[in-house]
Amino acid sequence: MPVLFPKITTESLFPVAGVRLGITQAGIKKALRDDCLIIVLDEGAEVAGVFTQNKYCAAPVQISQSHLAKTQAQNQTSKQSIRALVINTGCANAGTGAQGLEDARSTCAALAKIIGCQTTQILPFSTGVIMEYLPMDKLLPALPLAYHNFANWLAAAQTIMTTDTLPKASSRQVTIDDQLITITGISKGAGMIAPNMATMLGFVLTDALVPNDILQSWCGEIADASFNAITIDGDTSTNDSFMLIATGKHVLSAQGLETLRATLTEVATELAQLIVRDAEGATKFITLQINGGKTRAECRQIARAIAHSPLVKTAFYANDPNLGRILAAIGYAGVDDLDTNLITLYLNEVLVAQFGGRAASYEESAGKAVMAQAEITVRVLLNRGTETYTLWTSDLSHEYVSINADYRS
Amino acid sequence: MPVLFPKITTESLFPVAGVRLGITQAGIKKALRDDCLIIVLDEGAEVAGVFTQNKYCAAPVQISQSHLAKTQAQNQTSKQSIRALVINTGCANAGTGAQGLEDARSTCAALAKIIGCQTTQILPFSTGVIMEYLPMDKLLPALPLAYHNFANWLAAAQTIMTTDTLPKASSRQVTIDDQLITITGISKGAGMIAPNMATMLGFVLTDALVPNDILQSWCGEIADASFNAITIDGDTSTNDSFMLIATGKHVLSAQGLETLRATLTEVATELAQLIVRDAEGATKFITLQINGGKTRAECRQIARAIAHSPLVKTAFYANDPNLGRILAAIGYAGVDDLDTNLITLYLNEVLVAQFGGRAASYEESAGKAVMAQAEITVRVLLNRGTETYTLWTSDLSHEYVSINADYRS
Repeated sequence: MPVLFPKITTESLFPVAGVRLGITQAGIKKALRDDCLIIVLDEGAEVAGVFTQNKYCAAPVQISQSHLAKTQAQNQTSKQSIRALVINTGCANAGTGAQGLEDARSTCAALAKIIGCQTTQILPFSTGVIMEYLPMDKLLPALPLAYHNFANWLAAAQTIMTTDTLPKASSRQVTIDDQLITITGISKGAGMIAPNMATMLGFVLTDALVPNDILQSWCGEIADASFNAITIDGDTSTNDSFMLIATGKHVLSAQGLETLRATLTEVATELAQLIVRDAEGATKFITLQINGGKTRAECRQIARAIAHSPLVKTAFYANDPNLGRILAAIGYAGVDDLDTNLITLYLNEVLVAQFGGRAASYEESAGKAVMAQAEITVRVLLNRGTETYTLWTSDLSHEYVSINADYRS
Repeated sequence: MPVLFPKITTESLFPVAGVRLGITQAGIKKALRDDCLIIVLDEGAEVAGVFTQNKYCAAPVQISQSHLAKTQAQNQTSKQSIRALVINTGCANAGTGAQGLEDARSTCAALAKIIGCQTTQILPFSTGVIMEYLPMDKLLPALPLAYHNFANWLAAAQTIMTTDTLPKASSRQVTIDDQLITITGISKGAGMIAPNMATMLGFVLTDALVPNDILQSWCGEIADASFNAITIDGDTSTNDSFMLIATGKHVLSAQGLETLRATLTEVATELAQLIVRDAEGATKFITLQINGGKTRAECRQIARAIAHSPLVKTAFYANDPNLGRILAAIGYAGVDDLDTNLITLYLNEVLVAQFGGRAASYEESAGKAVMAQAEITVRVLLNRGTETYTLWTSDLSHEYVSINADYRS
């Protein structure tokens, strides 16, 4: 059961000028469900992306990176912009060697032919089981069907789901420089989610004009504040991709661009948090705030150690304030010169630990009351500097094991 | 259910000359079970230890380290050797600040009084729940009872169990330099187990004479090959301690010492593996062999990434050869210049992956047949050097979640 997941309706998701969506059932993994999405862009759209750091990075990730690089290189002169993104679920096309690259390339070539553009103007994305080949006999015939079967954003979000139980989308319309600017995004992911992304796909689009170099630098920063700040099981997937797309219909001032950036960050953060709210088997949405660090890196190290501890995660699942497990995780996070006597630990507003141990005022009933809630904030004050880091995560339940033990069967 | 756990009997565990054991029920956590063990040593025993790297290291760990350092410093002149180890379960006395240190020290002082030695000649050990205070009103009266209630090694192993389902002990008698040398050890641990130890206690004793400096250097090496080469959930505990004790009844040659070291390593490795066999909720015993690395460190990094991946662990639990998850873990292990085209992956003798993807010869039925077994070896050939690393781990089951969600209730 997703944790306090907001209701997402068709009406709440605004179309983005310069973007057309198409979906179909390719039947890649399961019959009778949409599993192929095409996002068609008007000519001239700017596209930026950040991708998984996994060395077994999937074939579509490699091809997308290469096409993006080529298009960016050309962009200055011949303006051959990215014209479409094609996304399939059911098969990740990762750990598939040379054949996988060939399949991803053929997918782009086939779609390029339909659209009437170069193969390098298409970006492919896949998500699903690793180490299985793309069923090209199913995917290729599906492309013209998807291209001609117009869809809205909610249907698009549904199409890219795998173990997700709910579609993930977020949308805003804001007035910037007296123009109504639209920002809409979708994401998918529920397991194999770790910082530096996940079996995670995120697409955020706006109809504003953002120069390519600015869009590219935003993309990394926004990913860092959103999709890189969530973790479910610590497994960084082979397919993670976050794409930021600007179709260029509205020219903004420098000040307007700053407002746009903030709104894009907001939408990306909401999309990332939706992934945690729908985490496999999750019963809790946990915010880890590490404050007072010497460096942001050490705050992040401690946040990740807490977030990845199966013992901490099962304690949250059990509503059990077995908070010594959090202290243990802080202690083994690998921050070398940590003085535990300086550390203060709060669970929401309840002071739990200080001076190297349990706080004198702490009563278990207070901890238990917090643990019973669906949303919990864990605050660690290191008291050795001014840096901070925030990470969102979920708990570890019987259901997580069931989902991942049964995923392929 | 423990995985292929050997039958351990009283008869199979040899007494060690110069060592006396005593146990009792202090009632620290649960009534009617032994939870306090005292290991009494003849004067002149040499004791070496390695301890958790956790910054929230428990009070008894801090006191043991300090007493050990003092005794070693004195040893050259006044020969005040360690006279006893006192171990309680039910409470880890970790995350307990100044009060915890005071409690650990008082425990040593009380036992020293009974034995008639200095407080610094006692080493305290605790295991159990973190961030709770030692119930001194129960522990102190238990010390004379334990001291006078002689026990054998099996009872000693039972006494230090927490979530362990079976006692863990290993023993050998070997003839070295025409003398019958005894080596006996016990260990405990089932969760919060990670490299660099665990809620893990290990004690290995021999009646041979080993000079202190040699014993200390062996202790680190042997821990590295045994207790540091296991992981269950990646949680490095606050209380990990591995003690190597030589009571000095038999003088050995330099050659004889080498034989002794090998046997001590064997016993420690068996004790470490018993912890994995009895891992919380384990249904599989998995050996991860990483070969052909440039450095041992990178092999270890990859082994740990595989071992700590909840997705890999749940796939083993499900008998599901969803082996792309292993590739993904190799890929995100953080080895920077890894060329996945060189990597070969075997499941027992079945070739699973090579050339960056699935092996052409691989059939899922072969993978499934291996996954159905209780003991599985995963071999990763990096083909970029000659270094290797072996790590033992377990799977992640519903039962693991149940045990850790319910541990305190």
